[in-house]
Amino acid sequence: MTLAESKTNAPAPENKGGVVISVDAMGGDRGPAAVMGGIAQSAEKNPDIRFIVHGPKPELERLIGRRSDLLARCDIRDAQGVVSMTDKPSQVLRKGEGTSMWSAVESVRQGEATVAVSCGNTGALMALSMLRLRKLPGVNRPAIACLWPSRNPQGFNVMLDVGADIRADAEDLLAYALMGASYARNGLGLSRPRVGLLNVGTEEHKGRAELKQAHELIAGMSEAGSFDYIGFVEGSDLPSDRVDVIVTDGFTGNVALKTGEGTAKLVGDFLKEAFGNSVMSKFAALLAMTSLKRLQKRIDPRRVNGGVFLGLNGTVVKSHGSADATGVSAALKLAFQLAQSGFHDRLAARIAQSLAAEAATTTEHKGMS
Amino acid sequence: MTLAESKTNAPAPENKGGVVISVDAMGGDRGPAAVMGGIAQSAEKNPDIRFIVHGPKPELERLIGRRSDLLARCDIRDAQGVVSMTDKPSQVLRKGEGTSMWSAVESVRQGEATVAVSCGNTGALMALSMLRLRKLPGVNRPAIACLWPSRNPQGFNVMLDVGADIRADAEDLLAYALMGASYARNGLGLSRPRVGLLNVGTEEHKGRAELKQAHELIAGMSEAGSFDYIGFVEGSDLPSDRVDVIVTDGFTGNVALKTGEGTAKLVGDFLKEAFGNSVMSKFAALLAMTSLKRLQKRIDPRRVNGGVFLGLNGTVVKSHGSADATGVSAALKLAFQLAQSGFHDRLAARIAQSLAAEAATTTEHKGMS
Repeated sequence: MTLAESKTNAPAPENKGGVVISVDAMGGDRGPAAVMGGIAQSAEKNPDIRFIVHGPKPELERLIGRRSDLLARCDIRDAQGVVSMTDKPSQVLRKGEGTSMWSAVESVRQGEATVAVSCGNTGALMALSMLRLRKLPGVNRPAIACLWPSRNPQGFNVMLDVGADIRADAEDLLAYALMGASYARNGLGLSRPRVGLLNVGTEEHKGRAELKQAHELIAGMSEAGSFDYIGFVEGSDLPSDRVDVIVTDGFTGNVALKTGEGTAKLVGDFLKEAFGNSVMSKFAALLAMTSLKRLQKRIDPRRVNGGVFLGLNGTVVKSHGSADATGVSAALKLAFQLAQSGFHDRLAARIAQSLAAEAATTTEHKGMS
Repeated sequence: MTLAESKTNAPAPENKGGVVISVDAMGGDRGPAAVMGGIAQSAEKNPDIRFIVHGPKPELERLIGRRSDLLARCDIRDAQGVVSMTDKPSQVLRKGEGTSMWSAVESVRQGEATVAVSCGNTGALMALSMLRLRKLPGVNRPAIACLWPSRNPQGFNVMLDVGADIRADAEDLLAYALMGASYARNGLGLSRPRVGLLNVGTEEHKGRAELKQAHELIAGMSEAGSFDYIGFVEGSDLPSDRVDVIVTDGFTGNVALKTGEGTAKLVGDFLKEAFGNSVMSKFAALLAMTSLKRLQKRIDPRRVNGGVFLGLNGTVVKSHGSADATGVSAALKLAFQLAQSGFHDRLAARIAQSLAAEAATTTEHKGMS
């Protein structure tokens, strides 16, 4: 809901104007129909968005054909190949050129579209994006940022990296802090995000060596990066209102993300069982329908669908492989918001500026106020 | 519920017989009254359990004095010092000798009690336990194992390490697999537990180098260790019914544990808000009371209260610092079950046997069937 608030304030563009999103129609668990369904939902809600859709032309034309309103908003790019969920990234780098995923990333590289969206294989998408878009100067390891339902007014916190790389040294964690803060400003509209570093305790003496080092680096860069650094946070803080951006390595972040999803699903299933247990509780569930739906909406993973690849020369949004039309539409909304806010250029400028600040600091005495 | 099922089948012991648990009455967030409350609950439910209680004698006598039935079941050991939640482990090692925590661990060292239970500072308790009880031969890093609500018939899965050490190499992870399987056999009554190794994907090529190495080591030891090794698992599998014991390093395990707790609490709070939203939904909540209570019981962290320190010459159970009487009583129940099953001796025997098997394997060709 937060993510596309500004769209109604923007002036109506030319027919062929507006934001262009490049969409990989293939590779998701539910096939191109779910992706086209998401595009249709998105187009209906947002007049300022256009699409370049990549996949086998006959199939996509058949799907679009049923929705004549979409014809004017979609460019179809024929790509016969599909990257499957089991393909290894290295294979895709070597042989992936004819695939819809490759083609979708290529549209961003060529500047035809601002953001690419795919429901496909995460590892392959990251490898392709790195190969074709290349890393931003000053970024050693790109990251995937996810949104996490939280107690904050904006409804979500940002966590990164959730799986682009299984390693991260102190410099990488600093880059994640800068990129995550930039994402929170442009994606969630927070002018001065609060950044925390994930650790096993909040005391300064705890944790691995690279975390203690990153702790110093991030604290020193908070002024230049326009964020507040609140120090170490723990797993229990991920949904809390004391932090907006949680920085961690891709191994820990991925485990935390999947643990959170698994726990929410467990509690949800137990809840369903509890309400299915007796006639009385079934009746109660009926009475509480509105409330339960409101709850479901708050923790619905489809609403927070979209991992954003950060640190490349171009923005790529990874939608859940199992996303249905509603999930795809959420990912498209996020892509639109990031495209419209000029997120990519701002992020690149911020990284460049911080690099300069860091270079300046290392020549002076350490420890800026 | 699963944990002390056997108690009713055991023959009634002599008045001074039964299992003796050493309890640190101090150091928890709610003070000695909560701990004594837990002891009282536990004593009431279980005639076979006796306690050595450590803390300032006058205060403990005053608390027990009100419950004359407890007098015959509790030995009080005077200890004036208290380890606080903010004390650093290194300080406690140097100056902790007069504290209730030190005294509680000492009773296990002296053989007066089988298991020690404390609600105090985790880092200090682990450091003290390592200093006084020493590591089991063959164990390089002890681990803390926790119980995780799951879809399995036994209601819980075991995860370790959740924070004894922030590092673990492949050999450590193998020891965790052996200790976790032994805990699941004796604590949860599973004859052949299924062990999984936590990673960012289930494919064999994923993950850090030490994980791939541990993957081979654990697979090779499954026969000798009497468990089934199911390979890599992900964060979403922690509450699943495809695994019983989840092995990971203490950094990742601690983040996962706290993330799970935080997520369950978030969903619970959202649920409460949802039911508080309208008169209709409040009425519905009233109708669904029994079902909601059943749900709450399944995910109540007090029911799974008790991290077990594994890999020492003696068993120590760490209760949540914020545990109330019900939480303390759950930790005492777990301690009783482990003491009665002869868990410690079995675990030590299993480790010794596996060391022998490993030594034998390394002299042969690699790769036992």
